[in-house]
Amino acid sequence: MTVRRAFLGPAGTFTEEALLSLGTEGIDPVPFATIGEVFAAVASGGCDEGVVPIENSVEGSVNETLDALAFDHELHITAELVRDIHHSLVVAPGVRLEDVTAIVSKPEATAQARTWLAANLPGRAAVAANSTAEAVQRAVAEPGLAAIGTTLAARLYAGEVLQEAIEDFAGNQTRFVVIGRGTCEPTGHDKTSLALFMQRNKPGALLMILSEFAYGQIDLTKIQSRPTKKQLGHYMFFVDIEGHITDPSIALALKCLELKLREVKVLGSYPRAV
Amino acid sequence: MTVRRAFLGPAGTFTEEALLSLGTEGIDPVPFATIGEVFAAVASGGCDEGVVPIENSVEGSVNETLDALAFDHELHITAELVRDIHHSLVVAPGVRLEDVTAIVSKPEATAQARTWLAANLPGRAAVAANSTAEAVQRAVAEPGLAAIGTTLAARLYAGEVLQEAIEDFAGNQTRFVVIGRGTCEPTGHDKTSLALFMQRNKPGALLMILSEFAYGQIDLTKIQSRPTKKQLGHYMFFVDIEGHITDPSIALALKCLELKLREVKVLGSYPRAV
Repeated sequence: MTVRRAFLGPAGTFTEEALLSLGTEGIDPVPFATIGEVFAAVASGGCDEGVVPIENSVEGSVNETLDALAFDHELHITAELVRDIHHSLVVAPGVRLEDVTAIVSKPEATAQARTWLAANLPGRAAVAANSTAEAVQRAVAEPGLAAIGTTLAARLYAGEVLQEAIEDFAGNQTRFVVIGRGTCEPTGHDKTSLALFMQRNKPGALLMILSEFAYGQIDLTKIQSRPTKKQLGHYMFFVDIEGHITDPSIALALKCLELKLREVKVLGSYPRAV
Repeated sequence: MTVRRAFLGPAGTFTEEALLSLGTEGIDPVPFATIGEVFAAVASGGCDEGVVPIENSVEGSVNETLDALAFDHELHITAELVRDIHHSLVVAPGVRLEDVTAIVSKPEATAQARTWLAANLPGRAAVAANSTAEAVQRAVAEPGLAAIGTTLAARLYAGEVLQEAIEDFAGNQTRFVVIGRGTCEPTGHDKTSLALFMQRNKPGALLMILSEFAYGQIDLTKIQSRPTKKQLGHYMFFVDIEGHITDPSIALALKCLELKLREVKVLGSYPRAV
């Protein structure tokens, strides 16, 4: 049986690179234009699973993904993976560096390669594209252009990689999650993601939450506050903790939190990437 | 004396709209291409102040701004302002809706107007631009194109606004901060932004921090964990609290935190926007 796996496309994006790194046997990858459409495809049953970015070390959390999990759907994170983001300079076959008159990419990608570009392609105009994959397609079609994109896109669209890893900062990483309708069995090396919704006007809520976790000797790996936007004065927290929801100490902490908070939504218990 | 105020440009961006809302008397606005360049201009003394985005309700925190404050510079936040983000559909003068064959903007802006576009301009191609300001310039030059951008940019580049407020979500807001070299006197309605750097291997650190604030009856308005990226296993928190650094309870809490944490960096004490 083939698994239909939705992803943030088009073909050749970093998200597709992440998806392919999970293995391709029995997988049918289906690209969608937005994160919202990936979630909708999985929620409707049109796809079995989806792969979306959730956090980048430079750009921060992807709120579209967090909000889709917390507010819009009853889907679970079933896996996570952390990928180094490498930008390649891609041109039409035969084009040399000295032939390049302009750079095309997503503005974020161009910004992340600023130092390399200033040293190797000074003064070239920056042309914007909707995605790194679109940029590579344009560079292959217009020989004066060089794209910043993935090596995967270069292969898919018959481009040539002139230089790999032109990004300014080593350590540019993106965390992707697989979303689905099922849940995961404990592996002994798990992470649980939670959306915790406060009662209104309870300033001590976060201290209480951390005390519950401390009592259970549960380690937090991430915490982020966020206005719910549904109603003024309502706040929530996205929290990642180490362990599986079936661990007795986590089950107890969540039971105590459910008695006190407005809502405790489990976004997933899944194997930790690192 | 004129104040040279750097901002994330080009002219006509949402950041320039924010800057102009602060008043224009005696201000010389200077556009820069990146947030890093705005910080560098203020740090070097080339500009007196800078205006940069720090958080958007849809896109999340702007890590480039947080990191510049925490790691790269010794500048302070001296003011904040929260702005509703409204997208306008901008065309060359005389162009009607039915003449529009393609949409040009930053991909993020186009995505945020998806519903309106599907209803009013279905099937039009999406052309990418480096900024909403660049998009408006292109639409004015190419009458088949409609740009998604600011009303300010329409005015600056002699475009015509066909429709205001085409964004899908009401409540799309961006928080901007003014950065400078000085500090602010207390006003009685202040906020303090902190970067707190943990000692390594101290899992109870956040609970301790919150206890110090709770003891001083200090309200947190934002908390966000973040790897420092400088060294594996080192974490830090960005925290916003209500009050001024000269308030006795805040001064005491920070003194206690300085004794225990690796570093307590005050990013600014400044009047609260809301």
